[in-house]
Amino acid sequence: MDALTPVDAGFVLADLDPGSTPGMSDKKHAARDLDSRRATLDKLQERLFAESRFGGTRSVLLVLQAMDTAGKGGIVRHVVGGIDPQGVHIHAFKAPTDEEKAHDFLWRIRKQLPQPGSIGVFDRSHYEDVLIHRVRGFSPPEVIEERYGIINNFEAEVAASGTTIVKVMLHISKDEQKKRLLERLDRPDKHWKFNPGDIDERLLWEKYQEAYQIAITRTSTTDAPWFVVPANHKWYARWAVQGLLLDAMTRLDPQWPAADYDVDAERARLLAS
Amino acid sequence: MDALTPVDAGFVLADLDPGSTPGMSDKKHAARDLDSRRATLDKLQERLFAESRFGGTRSVLLVLQAMDTAGKGGIVRHVVGGIDPQGVHIHAFKAPTDEEKAHDFLWRIRKQLPQPGSIGVFDRSHYEDVLIHRVRGFSPPEVIEERYGIINNFEAEVAASGTTIVKVMLHISKDEQKKRLLERLDRPDKHWKFNPGDIDERLLWEKYQEAYQIAITRTSTTDAPWFVVPANHKWYARWAVQGLLLDAMTRLDPQWPAADYDVDAERARLLAS
Repeated sequence: MDALTPVDAGFVLADLDPGSTPGMSDKKHAARDLDSRRATLDKLQERLFAESRFGGTRSVLLVLQAMDTAGKGGIVRHVVGGIDPQGVHIHAFKAPTDEEKAHDFLWRIRKQLPQPGSIGVFDRSHYEDVLIHRVRGFSPPEVIEERYGIINNFEAEVAASGTTIVKVMLHISKDEQKKRLLERLDRPDKHWKFNPGDIDERLLWEKYQEAYQIAITRTSTTDAPWFVVPANHKWYARWAVQGLLLDAMTRLDPQWPAADYDVDAERARLLAS
Repeated sequence: MDALTPVDAGFVLADLDPGSTPGMSDKKHAARDLDSRRATLDKLQERLFAESRFGGTRSVLLVLQAMDTAGKGGIVRHVVGGIDPQGVHIHAFKAPTDEEKAHDFLWRIRKQLPQPGSIGVFDRSHYEDVLIHRVRGFSPPEVIEERYGIINNFEAEVAASGTTIVKVMLHISKDEQKKRLLERLDRPDKHWKFNPGDIDERLLWEKYQEAYQIAITRTSTTDAPWFVVPANHKWYARWAVQGLLLDAMTRLDPQWPAADYDVDAERARLLAS
């Protein structure tokens, strides 16, 4: 994954081609990787879970943000879907409820943080509070301005508690989105995936790109880096996000924990039972 | 799945051989079924989810109960693991917390019921309150006696709200459990799966069998039937539980919902954007 580096202060979203495939040009090769690395990811997660049963506190959080149709659902299905579902906690953040609105914007987020040993996946996240909120003016500019710092502090705290954070923006082009929305309208079995509100958001495309540009450059930190994944090619985006997750898990290098009980004594007790 | 019929009042747990494989004698055939039916199950769940997006309220709840090592985890991994993780909600009920103990025994259960469109899986459940509670005397006999009726009423209410309930007891023999616990002690990569308390429970094997016999005959209803799945052979148990889940989903027969917006108008709006 040399080709995907974390976002830094000089990153310009508009300069990244959503149709590019950095680090992987062969679709078949990518599909083979996706298949073979699934088992590795699953094994690493099992070790992380095992570790947590004997006191380990580490976990991983994958944050997915994107314009509609960019393929968040496909990432969850094809990348996360290969991992034992008992070790995964997926949460899709929708428009906040009245109860959620009555609390600070991180309240509902904290409740969904992954338990030790598991992989959390946020389908949308606290970033909506600096994305749609900025574009639609749901919060005043000075409140949004403050939130970047609040988010950085929050993520530093989460990282310090043992959670490795990987933030991914799936980056598609406006034309690609039109194609995908059209497919949802053309196929009756896809009608349920379409919402008239999707077009309302699409009409604000440039404002969203600007909001993303600001959000990701201001909140890409060592503790919680952003990666922008070109996503016009679904096969590429899946391969790339799997690679980021695999990198994070490999760096954690979880090990089978040593027994915290007397193995021989328990064996004797079992044999006598 | 003709071979697996719901538990009725005349059912005798002790008469069911945990090493039997009713309805399927060929391990390879079962493995092929497991693979091929995974996609069917996934598609049915997607339709159920689609339905829920346009007002559908139906869901499925799989309740798994068993003695330790009987293979609940393997069922979740191999049967439920083939379904889009976004459509699945798995919850493992552990010993209740102080907060949970302060409420009635169904309080924590209600919070984990599946959302419309999804498949919920309970790894252990409210049945612990009539199983371990009975065996260990955590609750007085008259309280436990009352609970069977409370559970039946609760499940009838859940079923009436649109949730199809499938309850499964994985049935292993005492010898098979010894073999499996021994493996956990013999393999360092399995040590984390062993808990000295597992042997304490094992020493009460016969009392647990009796508690199961009473619980399943008293709470197997039309709304929420119990199925006892012989589980000495893991390949069989997975195949059988997948079959039960598939039966439930097939009976629901979810359909792609019709659009609740004007498709042509939205297409025109999209093309102009």
